[in-house]
Amino acid sequence: MRLLSRVQSLLAFPRWQELKTCQRALSTTMSRKSLDISGIYPPLATPYNKDESIAFDKLELNMKKWNQIPFKGYVVQGSNAEWCFQSWEERVQVVRETAKLAAPGKLIMAGSGCESTRETIRMGKEMAEAGAHALLVVNPFYFKDGMTSDALVAHYTAVADQSPLPIVIYNVPRNTGMNIPVDSIVRMAQHPNIIGIKDSGGDITRIASMVFATSSSDFQVLAGSAGFLLAAYNVGCVGGICALANVLGEEVCKLGELAQSTDSQAARDLQLRLVGPNSCVTSRFGVPGLKAAMEWFGYYGGPTRSPLQPLSDSNSQAMKSEFQKSHFL
Amino acid sequence: MRLLSRVQSLLAFPRWQELKTCQRALSTTMSRKSLDISGIYPPLATPYNKDESIAFDKLELNMKKWNQIPFKGYVVQGSNAEWCFQSWEERVQVVRETAKLAAPGKLIMAGSGCESTRETIRMGKEMAEAGAHALLVVNPFYFKDGMTSDALVAHYTAVADQSPLPIVIYNVPRNTGMNIPVDSIVRMAQHPNIIGIKDSGGDITRIASMVFATSSSDFQVLAGSAGFLLAAYNVGCVGGICALANVLGEEVCKLGELAQSTDSQAARDLQLRLVGPNSCVTSRFGVPGLKAAMEWFGYYGGPTRSPLQPLSDSNSQAMKSEFQKSHFL
Amino acid sequence: MRLLSRVQSLLAFPRWQELKTCQRALSTTMSRKSLDISGIYPPLATPYNKDESIAFDKLELNMKKWNQIPFKGYVVQGSNAEWCFQSWEERVQVVRETAKLAAPGKLIMAGSGCESTRETIRMGKEMAEAGAHALLVVNPFYFKDGMTSDALVAHYTAVADQSPLPIVIYNVPRNTGMNIPVDSIVRMAQHPNIIGIKDSGGDITRIASMVFATSSSDFQVLAGSAGFLLAAYNVGCVGGICALANVLGEEVCKLGELAQSTDSQAARDLQLRLVGPNSCVTSRFGVPGLKAAMEWFGYYGGPTRSPLQPLSDSNSQAMKSEFQKSHFL
Amino acid sequence: MRLLSRVQSLLAFPRWQELKTCQRALSTTMSRKSLDISGIYPPLATPYNKDESIAFDKLELNMKKWNQIPFKGYVVQGSNAEWCFQSWEERVQVVRETAKLAAPGKLIMAGSGCESTRETIRMGKEMAEAGAHALLVVNPFYFKDGMTSDALVAHYTAVADQSPLPIVIYNVPRNTGMNIPVDSIVRMAQHPNIIGIKDSGGDITRIASMVFATSSSDFQVLAGSAGFLLAAYNVGCVGGICALANVLGEEVCKLGELAQSTDSQAARDLQLRLVGPNSCVTSRFGVPGLKAAMEWFGYYGGPTRSPLQPLSDSNSQAMKSEFQKSHFL
Repeated sequence: MRLLSRVQSLLAFPRWQELKTCQRALSTTMSRKSLDISGIYPPLATPYNKDESIAFDKLELNMKKWNQIPFKGYVVQGSNAEWCFQSWEERVQVVRETAKLAAPGKLIMAGSGCESTRETIRMGKEMAEAGAHALLVVNPFYFKDGMTSDALVAHYTAVADQSPLPIVIYNVPRNTGMNIPVDSIVRMAQHPNIIGIKDSGGDITRIASMVFATSSSDFQVLAGSAGFLLAAYNVGCVGGICALANVLGEEVCKLGELAQSTDSQAARDLQLRLVGPNSCVTSRFGVPGLKAAMEWFGYYGGPTRSPLQPLSDSNSQAMKSEFQKSHFL
Repeated sequence: MRLLSRVQSLLAFPRWQELKTCQRALSTTMSRKSLDISGIYPPLATPYNKDESIAFDKLELNMKKWNQIPFKGYVVQGSNAEWCFQSWEERVQVVRETAKLAAPGKLIMAGSGCESTRETIRMGKEMAEAGAHALLVVNPFYFKDGMTSDALVAHYTAVADQSPLPIVIYNVPRNTGMNIPVDSIVRMAQHPNIIGIKDSGGDITRIASMVFATSSSDFQVLAGSAGFLLAAYNVGCVGGICALANVLGEEVCKLGELAQSTDSQAARDLQLRLVGPNSCVTSRFGVPGLKAAMEWFGYYGGPTRSPLQPLSDSNSQAMKSEFQKSHFL
Repeated sequence: MRLLSRVQSLLAFPRWQELKTCQRALSTTMSRKSLDISGIYPPLATPYNKDESIAFDKLELNMKKWNQIPFKGYVVQGSNAEWCFQSWEERVQVVRETAKLAAPGKLIMAGSGCESTRETIRMGKEMAEAGAHALLVVNPFYFKDGMTSDALVAHYTAVADQSPLPIVIYNVPRNTGMNIPVDSIVRMAQHPNIIGIKDSGGDITRIASMVFATSSSDFQVLAGSAGFLLAAYNVGCVGGICALANVLGEEVCKLGELAQSTDSQAARDLQLRLVGPNSCVTSRFGVPGLKAAMEWFGYYGGPTRSPLQPLSDSNSQAMKSEFQKSHFL
Repeated sequence: MRLLSRVQSLLAFPRWQELKTCQRALSTTMSRKSLDISGIYPPLATPYNKDESIAFDKLELNMKKWNQIPFKGYVVQGSNAEWCFQSWEERVQVVRETAKLAAPGKLIMAGSGCESTRETIRMGKEMAEAGAHALLVVNPFYFKDGMTSDALVAHYTAVADQSPLPIVIYNVPRNTGMNIPVDSIVRMAQHPNIIGIKDSGGDITRIASMVFATSSSDFQVLAGSAGFLLAAYNVGCVGGICALANVLGEEVCKLGELAQSTDSQAARDLQLRLVGPNSCVTSRFGVPGLKAAMEWFGYYGGPTRSPLQPLSDSNSQAMKSEFQKSHFL
């Protein structure tokens, strides 16, 4: 039955038909799909110096601490990395340095999405050479009205066809101002080289729909925030990419573990304690909040790039109070 | 500590201060707060005849079947009842008839929300006399911009002050076009006569926030849809008011039970199977979809009132296919 | 050609086909369509006493002043009347009293929209008997997802078929949370008894589209706010229903006049001065702002009904400053 | 009084205070503000070959035709140029080539906005060297929640401080998913090097507010679409940057002319005819629609870059029908 679904997927993606004649390529591709991305990842914040240049020395210090935590791997150049503020070269260089600094066995998932299909493909190739193991591809969103299901399927199919690495779709409506339609995700899940999705929207019904509708496709769904991580596990997600893990990495990993245990009371208690701090470093105060909180826990946070503004004193106070209410400070 | 929080709440709600001098009234009110609303409820669809008059005989037939199911009670005059299409008198009459037809021990929660504070109060009193045990109060939403946290707290406080029954807040952004702010809910939760909320929005992070922030207030949170019922239980909700329970009542009750058991795999499997059918009878096809599905399962569905339109054949086919995919048909 | 379009419209609206055999009814209906609604109207604020009962004596005082202004007529029970806070009987009674108090020749347009088709029809009949000359019908909006173009066309067609008065559609997205689709408006414009629309959305491209697409249908478009009144006239609207006209009636009428003159500089200057005060009594401070401003200009404003809250002092100050910047205070 | 407002603006923007000691720099800057940007501009579509490389030969052909039309100048690298799909180098190169091909006297306004402040500044400098006369700067929008009024004022101030060319703000909510707040625009308008705004949102009340609130600041407002060009002129805009001008340049210029004449009937008639075709090449069918329509009028349209998809046959037919209804085909 699994083989049948593969054949169906090949028929559905014409460009892949040629692979049918090429047993070796097919088997390689199929094994790619089996890359296991389950587990917890921090989407690493990029450290900057005061002059907004990248502080690679501070990245090294942070990585030493993060490497002690049972993360599955690292997401480099996600939204919290402020990738959108970096030049082409910087985007690749941060991947290269992080890959070097990561402890052995950590999976490097690199954010390679660009607005155009051609640049997304090119960026993915450069990040592969820089040491990434998988690519996290945010959807194009400038022309929101043009990003129909068909356009998105065509985009991701082209990217996946030409990518040396497996593709993880990235849906982040808070930043993109749109939601990737579920029907398009179900179609994309059939592609041998599209292995999963990070969904940051937090609509758990939508996430459950995706899990159910892709259950025969070996498709892995990751929660995009610690705010709904337990709920996500409970409907079949296999992990999470959580901004909060930059700050409270042990606790987020612990929640992932509890979510898969039978101790539902402990899981709930920890999840509820994490919701307030999580909102602070995401929806409420964004990357400036995240970086300020990192400082409280022994990491280098430092400034963001402009135009993001530093956290105000009153917001800092409000954030501290949330961490205290949950007894993390 | 619990007494302390009561005292704080009394200080926060000036009109309640007078109660401090009245020990009896206070103790009565406090015991009200302990009304246990945990469990599963269908928000009953109102049956209409072809000429759009209310089909009380069909209500009786449906109630006979629903009374066999381990529901905690019935929500009468929720959104799926098409309350907005009914006259003042009809709204009350349906509560009265349902209360009569309900099996002994079933809790009757009646939707009494109106746009004005004065009419909401008056409607609540009439529904109390008609046999309701608790009131489900949707927020006013015509003047969305005017419905600030302060306005909503003032509204619900006035309603709760004068209500003979405990109040359950009702947040349903799909219909109201707005979300009740969490900070106002936390304030309202301190009122002795506001005992819980039904949240239909499906933002699980928001729901977890409410649970955590009201944990010292004896405040009960109910999921407003079967689409995220398992997730809701897992972050501390105590039940659900689910349109789908009109159709698949046993299954929704079973999910509520599994959600509280240690069999997380069975819970997940059932939740995932319910998501598709649930979307059909809510977001995708609305009340016309719900009523069409009721017919498939031996209930009287019948027509909606105008301007809602009957389900088209193609939508009916699409809905059937979802129920089949999940093996409920 | 005009006759041809009528015949087409009759074919498009099956229930009207029967009228074809009834020459008299048809000709009556057709003449109805020629009701001229061009001009400026205030959507009257309903005066309340301190206890929230309707202050009919204050209405009389206000009407004496409004009757001096060259308004085409009065809109009774629009959004600013807080109709949504009134009982069925009150809604009709305010129409009756206003009709009595209006100077001879003033057109009374009454807001009769309800969520259900049946109640909208019934309300319209009662308002007709109470003295209205035309009905302003807001679209049903509780089941937003169900209000497709087809559902809206069916609703307005049924209402118009059975209405003793001509129908004016009312689109007010700020309150309803939805926009009536232009394609449905174009279809409805063909109905002999649907004579126009009040559009409060302020999307001038949309308004121009409607004017152009209905140009062969004898369909009259009214601006729903003084904020874009000049622009609306310039793309073919024939008047406006403007909250600000409760306060600055002479000035809004003057703007209507200038908009149709060749003195575009004077029109622009007045329009620009009116924008700030207009925003105050609509989007910024709503009905509480409107009523506070009425007091400054010799009208009775008084309280709103709950849950709307009185204007705060700081907002009152901000509003005063806007009126001063434009030299109206 | 004008000098007074300058001094106020200098006090409001601390970094400009240093200029006070530097009379020469100040006077240069002040003269910059007087750059007259009134008139009509097409936001040029970038021609691509079949392989998605830039077709500079086709650009030359198109420019020859556009140079015959009384445009004030050209907007290069606006949204319709698909700038978001181009590499850094391509963005600059297209400006350089267009500046060379433009007829003498045409103003070149170049879209230099990037997400980061630092890259926006750097891009502006390169485009200045490539021949631009003014910079059109779209707001950063990836971190929508972080783009507060303060953040936007800081961003545009830094950009304007360091820009060799005057800055025109670009507000395009359809693509950015957000609106630049009016209060921030009023503050930015005081900056000597921020000379105007292109507003594509189409909310005419908002546009009138900006015109009124900046009337003492020598600030020029341009309509961002032909759909509301007449209305915009009538509330004090001085021109428009209109996608439709790529296709119907003469007609859009004619509308600009009529809008400033006393022939309001002719202006209205032309505006109404343009609304349908304008919607086709903007909101309905986007850049693929624009490029398809260009082919009908003797321009090279060609393909878009991926992921934008070619216009379907049925959409092409629908678009043709709109152009025919308005008698442009």
